[in-house]
Amino acid sequence: MLIIGERINTSRKNILQAVDRRDVKFIQEEAIAQVEAGADFLDINAGSRTESEAEDLSWLVKVIQEVLEVPLCLDSPNSSALEVSLKVCKSKTLINSITGEEKRAEEILPLVKKYNSQVVALTMDEKGIPDNVDRRLKIIEKILKKVAEFKIPKDALYVDPLVQPISTNSLHALLALESLRQIESFFPEVKTIIGLSNVSFGLPKRELINQVFLPLALASGLDAVILDPLDKRLRANLSAAKVLLGKDDYCQEYLSSYRKGRLNV
Amino acid sequence: MLIIGERINTSRKNILQAVDRRDVKFIQEEAIAQVEAGADFLDINAGSRTESEAEDLSWLVKVIQEVLEVPLCLDSPNSSALEVSLKVCKSKTLINSITGEEKRAEEILPLVKKYNSQVVALTMDEKGIPDNVDRRLKIIEKILKKVAEFKIPKDALYVDPLVQPISTNSLHALLALESLRQIESFFPEVKTIIGLSNVSFGLPKRELINQVFLPLALASGLDAVILDPLDKRLRANLSAAKVLLGKDDYCQEYLSSYRKGRLNV
Repeated sequence: MLIIGERINTSRKNILQAVDRRDVKFIQEEAIAQVEAGADFLDINAGSRTESEAEDLSWLVKVIQEVLEVPLCLDSPNSSALEVSLKVCKSKTLINSITGEEKRAEEILPLVKKYNSQVVALTMDEKGIPDNVDRRLKIIEKILKKVAEFKIPKDALYVDPLVQPISTNSLHALLALESLRQIESFFPEVKTIIGLSNVSFGLPKRELINQVFLPLALASGLDAVILDPLDKRLRANLSAAKVLLGKDDYCQEYLSSYRKGRLNV
Repeated sequence: MLIIGERINTSRKNILQAVDRRDVKFIQEEAIAQVEAGADFLDINAGSRTESEAEDLSWLVKVIQEVLEVPLCLDSPNSSALEVSLKVCKSKTLINSITGEEKRAEEILPLVKKYNSQVVALTMDEKGIPDNVDRRLKIIEKILKKVAEFKIPKDALYVDPLVQPISTNSLHALLALESLRQIESFFPEVKTIIGLSNVSFGLPKRELINQVFLPLALASGLDAVILDPLDKRLRANLSAAKVLLGKDDYCQEYLSSYRKGRLNV
């Protein structure tokens, strides 16, 4: 399970302020804390102020790379902001994201190819987010064709079935879990990813919902997740879920986390 | 999801002592605390001292019934102890348990019929616990035939696929989850039950493993669970799992638990 740290996002007030005042130390500390907590990638999102997104995003890439070699997940639909940032990026990258929309894919896939990046594909298109699994699978088929046109290998693709909040429909989480299972079954060479916290939007005690949803998603075949790695209970639950789902031989990782005090939540 | 409180069991030292000195108040408080915490049934087990099991078990039934009308899960393979207890039991009962073993079923099923009880059937037989799902399903088939001979309706049956510890084999939890799914698929009229905490035997931070296993088991179709209802985190996780798995329309139960402070864990 690939862990992508979500904290460097200008939709969070303290990150926006740090970006605004070019506070190198604050950003670097946020980056380091997430990697120390187990993040394999860091998601970087500067989309909340579109007028300076390219400049902000590439600045974030540069300051993080001054202290870390961590792979980065460049979170933007804007191909200009992406290219400026890719140019300065020395580590492995994951572009987040394309969709089934022709124009967006046509703009971003050349960058994926040119910079040898991986890419997240959201299962939505011009008509929005489908309310059933079948139409999501159809969108993935379309995206796979497009990816093949650009001679990008299928295993560079992370498909995001788009988890919607259960506060607006009781079946949203089930739909996401079923999508994960079907994607694994129909497109075994494609990896899956979700943004964990969307599921709990609008409910109290969101972290509880997120903490329980992660094991369920892992059981449904999830390969990568965007989350807050500083949530200790979330990480402990992930350790337990890996043991339970046969993804931690001889409970080695679980026992090691226990010895390091990481299960004391 | 039927919650069966596990705490009144003479394998626990303080319960054994209370039974030994016939401490009515201690037992009644343990019973009341579990029901207040949400237990639908109470499991009663006095099996750790076989010489007085019948007397102890029926005493427990009597003292609990003095203060509660809660259904009881009579946890014993001993038909004499069961019958003495069933005779004094005024509430609904669940006998725990029969197995695929002919003799045990022949002794206990007449009691299930006579006292209009429900019954737990463990998926094991003379040869022990099968290491694969198929042989567990075969044992269930055999048990269903036996149950039909006694004209006991199928829906009186709770099948326990026998969760074994992951500390002895990394695949034990997966085997249990797969068994639950297949039982639901092949025998839709039969309900399923597990003893939750077996899965974590031999590992540190057992409660963490149990807390994560419960949502996974619910997602695999589990109908009833024997657990410690005083574990607040376990109950909070169950609330979250029910919302996520579409078993809590409009998040009503979750929001009610939140308002009662039950999600503050």
